[in-house]
Amino acid sequence: MFFIVTGAYTLINYQEFLAQRTELMRASEIREILKITEGKKIISLAGGLPDPQVFPKSELAEVTREIIKEKGDRALQYSPTKGVADLRDALLNYMKKHGISVGSNDDIIITTGSQQALDIIGRVLINPQDVVVVELPTYLAALNAFRLYRPSLVGVPIDDDGMKTDVLEEKVRKLAGEGKKVKLIYTIPVAHNPAGVTLSIERKKHLLEIASEHDILVIEDDPYSHFVYEENVDVTPLKTLDSEGRVVYLSTLSKILAPGLRIGWIAGNKELVEAFERAKQSLDLHTSTLCQYVAAEAIKRGLVDRTVEKAKVVYREKRNVMLSSLDKYMVKGAWWSKPIGGLFLMLRLPSDKVDTKELLPEAVQSGVAYVPGAAFYADGSGRNTMRLNFSFPKPEEIEAGIRILSELIRKKLS
Amino acid sequence: MFFIVTGAYTLINYQEFLAQRTELMRASEIREILKITEGKKIISLAGGLPDPQVFPKSELAEVTREIIKEKGDRALQYSPTKGVADLRDALLNYMKKHGISVGSNDDIIITTGSQQALDIIGRVLINPQDVVVVELPTYLAALNAFRLYRPSLVGVPIDDDGMKTDVLEEKVRKLAGEGKKVKLIYTIPVAHNPAGVTLSIERKKHLLEIASEHDILVIEDDPYSHFVYEENVDVTPLKTLDSEGRVVYLSTLSKILAPGLRIGWIAGNKELVEAFERAKQSLDLHTSTLCQYVAAEAIKRGLVDRTVEKAKVVYREKRNVMLSSLDKYMVKGAWWSKPIGGLFLMLRLPSDKVDTKELLPEAVQSGVAYVPGAAFYADGSGRNTMRLNFSFPKPEEIEAGIRILSELIRKKLS
Repeated sequence: MFFIVTGAYTLINYQEFLAQRTELMRASEIREILKITEGKKIISLAGGLPDPQVFPKSELAEVTREIIKEKGDRALQYSPTKGVADLRDALLNYMKKHGISVGSNDDIIITTGSQQALDIIGRVLINPQDVVVVELPTYLAALNAFRLYRPSLVGVPIDDDGMKTDVLEEKVRKLAGEGKKVKLIYTIPVAHNPAGVTLSIERKKHLLEIASEHDILVIEDDPYSHFVYEENVDVTPLKTLDSEGRVVYLSTLSKILAPGLRIGWIAGNKELVEAFERAKQSLDLHTSTLCQYVAAEAIKRGLVDRTVEKAKVVYREKRNVMLSSLDKYMVKGAWWSKPIGGLFLMLRLPSDKVDTKELLPEAVQSGVAYVPGAAFYADGSGRNTMRLNFSFPKPEEIEAGIRILSELIRKKLS
Repeated sequence: MFFIVTGAYTLINYQEFLAQRTELMRASEIREILKITEGKKIISLAGGLPDPQVFPKSELAEVTREIIKEKGDRALQYSPTKGVADLRDALLNYMKKHGISVGSNDDIIITTGSQQALDIIGRVLINPQDVVVVELPTYLAALNAFRLYRPSLVGVPIDDDGMKTDVLEEKVRKLAGEGKKVKLIYTIPVAHNPAGVTLSIERKKHLLEIASEHDILVIEDDPYSHFVYEENVDVTPLKTLDSEGRVVYLSTLSKILAPGLRIGWIAGNKELVEAFERAKQSLDLHTSTLCQYVAAEAIKRGLVDRTVEKAKVVYREKRNVMLSSLDKYMVKGAWWSKPIGGLFLMLRLPSDKVDTKELLPEAVQSGVAYVPGAAFYADGSGRNTMRLNFSFPKPEEIEAGIRILSELIRKKLS
């Protein structure tokens, strides 16, 4: 018998070439789940995709065509690492309209999505063993980005009003007593991902007091405050309350325009922004010039505002369907958040008996996917929680998904 | 007298919050020089910008409009970390046409410019103290990207035929004798940046033999081989000669379509590409979906091929102007490369008396800018060299720039 060997690839042991830090790079659980579900006919409550029906397609098509035709010499060229001035100006005005004042466009750096902002913050600010406070749970991709820089993560639990700042105060004091300084607090105050809760105004003030007393920088991740579905809720960003230049604010156009453009930004003290700029230089030189021009124009022409208005209507309805389906089908004793914005809610089962990660293959078998909650908890807890997305699936899919999920959970618990 | 103090920013010592690795992030000398020249009426031979007249603006405007209109639901949405399949397929075919065969589109990952490819390679492959061989000189931004991961850099000199592989062999052997394994060889074989030289076919084979004998991975950075200005020159990529899966190939659309799209890619063994993918996940989730769709369509419609044909004519003429200006004006005893492609040539002065970094302010004062060569040398040598760009300035500017520069150098040397 003959084997035809093409090439001699087996000679190289690629694993031996990998740097140690590569071991810290975990494949995101969400992305792995999305792979499982690919090609299968199941209802996915797992992703975090915006509903493409809110993308302003025809307007963006025209804007983009005009930009390339009229400003192509610049829009297709290399551009400054910090970002195109037009876009930084547009964001400065946009933030001002939302009550967030920063000094000038020099306090803003454009990033390739807010994922890059998270990596840059970790890279520039986190030494191994630096203490970083995160919410329990918190955004999985922030955990993964920070972990590469080997911080000591300290979790603070949340409730319906966001991070429990009394627990935060206690933990910061206790650590200070042990000679450990907290360097950063990372928080998603409005329409938290994955938890769907919002930090109350009293707690916001409390958090900033603690930060000031203990000289801590606050990383405010705010993808959602620009579109909340409820009237009369307080979504004041921490940055607005920040009189000391202590808050490093990050946001993104992914949810209020289109994620495919990969436009995020960081706003903070110029001195920090300059360090971020040096980091970004070796990361990708700069973010797509074309996408930056398109984004600037979209903001200036009110396209972002109109997208937000459209998105609010669509997502409010979908959230309502998810909430009412949970009311209708979910087992007694379960808790779930009531998000005022964002794309997600969190569900906690009434008993530790069910591990949502172990349940997932069965759920997928039954035709519904979600993200197990444990990955969002820095301390590995939250095994009876799951994150549910309502922005992407159709309303009827949301109801069916929650029904299937509820039945499965009921069966498991009985 | 009253001072109105807005905010209490002075309270925070931001420098204390920076991680140690931030010290390794140097601002690129090129970018700093570009800042000096901003707003001044000087001839810049310093940058590395393509000539915007080669951008296919009207075609790209149409392609982009169509894509957003027709495929906007996908082109404006999140997409896989590894890259849009359409683009990976298009690149697979494009590479095949240029004699570079990789197994499948799974051996390709899209990066946000080739700068990100360099960072990912450093991040995934370089442990502190790992020995990495680079050319003397080599691409400044690669040095800066790699240095963050604290390699031990070993420089190998070049001549008109590229890296001196006999010196390479000697150094690798000597290191092996000291118990030090070389892990990576980073090379820009065709139309080297900054040196403008091209590795001969004999040396390419020799380099691969050495790599094979000592089990070294070869990082082939190839932005330029797709458009060389001479006929009958051998520009076979190392990847084409690679029978062992030892070459990690990177390239970019920045020079053959438009840098503002930020589309680069890495092609290599699937096992490595998977590790690169995990790294990219926390870096920026994925490269702009829109830019990827535009790039895929541009390749498929032959737009890249047409841009290359146009670029060849423009750059060949500009290079010729620079070469003939050097012949006409430059001091005797100076050496300069005769690039068969790319955007740069390198000039070496006949004496060590003139440090090109010290000369720069005077040159700018006289109306011409360049990049001092030392920053491209891993060992800090090359102080009598400079990199000259011929792609961006107009032909008459090139001639005037070289004339001014030559006069200044003659004055200094006498």
